Amino acid sequence: MTQPLRIALAGLGTVGAGMVTILQTHAELITARAGREIRLVAVSARSRTKDRGVDLSGFDWEDDPVALARRDDVDLLVEVMGGEDGTARVATETALAAGKHVVTANKAMMARHGTRLAALAEEKGVSLRYEAAVAGGIPIVKALTEGMAANGMTRVLGVMNGTCNYILTEMERTGGAYADILADAQRLGYAEADPTFDVGGFDAAQKLALLSATAFGTEVDYDAIQIEGIERVTLTDIRHAREMGYAIKLLGVAALTPDGVEQRMQPCLVPDHSPLGQLEGVTNMVVLEGDFIGRTVYQGPGAGAGPTASAVMADVIDIARGAKVPSFGVPARMLSAPQRSGLAAPAPYYLRLGLADRPGTLARVADALGRAGISIDRMRQIQHETDEAPVLIVTHACARADLDRALADIMTMDVTTAEPVAYRIEPV
Amino acid sequence: MTQPLRIALAGLGTVGAGMVTILQTHAELITARAGREIRLVAVSARSRTKDRGVDLSGFDWEDDPVALARRDDVDLLVEVMGGEDGTARVATETALAAGKHVVTANKAMMARHGTRLAALAEEKGVSLRYEAAVAGGIPIVKALTEGMAANGMTRVLGVMNGTCNYILTEMERTGGAYADILADAQRLGYAEADPTFDVGGFDAAQKLALLSATAFGTEVDYDAIQIEGIERVTLTDIRHAREMGYAIKLLGVAALTPDGVEQRMQPCLVPDHSPLGQLEGVTNMVVLEGDFIGRTVYQGPGAGAGPTASAVMADVIDIARGAKVPSFGVPARMLSAPQRSGLAAPAPYYLRLGLADRPGTLARVADALGRAGISIDRMRQIQHETDEAPVLIVTHACARADLDRALADIMTMDVTTAEPVAYRIEPV
Repeated sequence: MTQPLRIALAGLGTVGAGMVTILQTHAELITARAGREIRLVAVSARSRTKDRGVDLSGFDWEDDPVALARRDDVDLLVEVMGGEDGTARVATETALAAGKHVVTANKAMMARHGTRLAALAEEKGVSLRYEAAVAGGIPIVKALTEGMAANGMTRVLGVMNGTCNYILTEMERTGGAYADILADAQRLGYAEADPTFDVGGFDAAQKLALLSATAFGTEVDYDAIQIEGIERVTLTDIRHAREMGYAIKLLGVAALTPDGVEQRMQPCLVPDHSPLGQLEGVTNMVVLEGDFIGRTVYQGPGAGAGPTASAVMADVIDIARGAKVPSFGVPARMLSAPQRSGLAAPAPYYLRLGLADRPGTLARVADALGRAGISIDRMRQIQHETDEAPVLIVTHACARADLDRALADIMTMDVTTAEPVAYRIEPV
Repeated sequence: MTQPLRIALAGLGTVGAGMVTILQTHAELITARAGREIRLVAVSARSRTKDRGVDLSGFDWEDDPVALARRDDVDLLVEVMGGEDGTARVATETALAAGKHVVTANKAMMARHGTRLAALAEEKGVSLRYEAAVAGGIPIVKALTEGMAANGMTRVLGVMNGTCNYILTEMERTGGAYADILADAQRLGYAEADPTFDVGGFDAAQKLALLSATAFGTEVDYDAIQIEGIERVTLTDIRHAREMGYAIKLLGVAALTPDGVEQRMQPCLVPDHSPLGQLEGVTNMVVLEGDFIGRTVYQGPGAGAGPTASAVMADVIDIARGAKVPSFGVPARMLSAPQRSGLAAPAPYYLRLGLADRPGTLARVADALGRAGISIDRMRQIQHETDEAPVLIVTHACARADLDRALADIMTMDVTTAEPVAYRIEPV
């Protein structure tokens, strides 16, 4: 009989408690699937006395997660405390240095220190895995590192933050303003009291950084991501986009371009009949594009105790089965320094301009776009009762730099009554 | 340096040639990801001289696939010849018996002999994998055996045959009849000259048998599947279903019910705003439902050289990395004899009846349904200019046996002018 895999659990929040529940519910099933017992030996969290709804009496308690990570009777540390630095990182480093596997749900830590931690794991001959850090329950790191392993990846994109997708789809469904729907989301527990990490795009960008490194074999390069949140997305634009056949999504895109890897997290328009365009609520969706496989799409719950703990346990079971998959698909020493693409690949753009309602204004705008080499696919002037004439434009594919030049030009003309709105239309 | 993984390839059709192309295109990338070289040593196919568009000069040739499977210089056999029995099975058994891993795309063989072959592989301490046999490029066997490994699975369902989905969506899009669209599909290469294997539901049922065994830890039980093809689906029903908010799909469902595992492959209605309802063309989609993760959805190309060869190579790379995952998620000796559910779980049904246009007819039909304990959710009589009054009924959830009893009752009444149409509405 194979020896049990002895694990320690650092963190007893939603995900940690969920993991204990899974282990207790499916002990027999998990042993059958893993081929050996997975035995939780010891746990650690801030408060020993807090009621978490799970029976912890069978496990040793450690006040100090770093001491937990160091225990001789542990083969694997599950780190679900969170936090980019501090205890989570020290515990992770301690465990790896001591030759123990680590499974983490900590996207902040991985997005910042992933390359180095992966190298440490490999040096020690152990695994460092983080399926739960990206898109919750969806086995997307597995799909990318294993399922797509024979492909040169060309693009990874998706909706990676459920809070933002909930807010955007609820704005449209209810006709509510951003601030009101955000307040609803906070009441429902979909958004934090300080929502910046979600609505500012930072949470999703951390996930994108991990997928991008894995897809393209580069060091994790979170700082390279152009990040724009959903705070300025208006119901007006959501509705106009819909009329023109698009949905607005906070879209993360990592793409291979001729001059390097491009990583963007920003509100984009996608065709409303595409899988991404049809995605509603707190669900996540990731699209993987490879040169032989073409396009595959993955959808599922992006957060929550059950899905996240399920992803943690999938990593644990893989390790119990003896899997040895490098954290980012290739050994950390082979990850290349990321060559950042300075230019977003050309794409069509959606523009909304508030133009002064005077003869010749539209012609001057069209002319400014033309001078920048931007051709217009569709233009629509909205009926209006004020002095501002709202004009919607969908351009043909153009470079963002050219577009910015044209918009700056238009701003100098004294024809616009407000800052122009420009959203990229991501081809999907 | 780790030793190369030496592979032999039996079958040089679309998939086999695609695999050679991938290996030649991405040799360096695959070595980096697998952690060792994957070296194709020898190949076998029917004709040595046929031009397959790939350079085979670097590989040994074997006329006999069984001799290929027996070679001393081979660690792994890729079997992409196809066929439930015959050479494919003999070569597979020969390779396993000789202690070589096998990766196959052969759903017919696996659906019929999978349990026994998996047991043989385990006895010999080698892997038998078949990702390419199910839903082409989508890494769905991996998602189920690994990504969902901590979950008790409750249901697996999906669209697993691209030909059928193409025909059904094209019928609606173009207004064409089944026979005409099938002829188009044959011209486009989406359907075989003898289309029975696809349109009869048999191809998809083989895939379902493999997913069902894996999800529920039972021996592969292809014979238990209730199979109904799409040959009798009419444009009339597609359009009526759409008016009532549904799409008709050839849906494979394997579900855990109180009295055992239920496996069905049949045209069903699904809500038209659900991911399954929105699926168009030759794409496949599989939905996995587990007790902790909830619902995850996987979409991608179900066939084709690139996607299928990509799936074959993913299995090969897994084995090169040292993965040891049982073929059906748990060791073959632990697979339970399948307990077949005799009853489909209750569900709503879509009924279309052609009623004689006489007073009281509708009341008698409603009464017959009521006597069988079936209540009506919605009923709609279609405007008509003939003696036949088409009536559409959506029932509340009911047992199929009760429905059949009611329909038999109605048929004795001399009120219907045609055989009633009844499709299950699968809750998704």
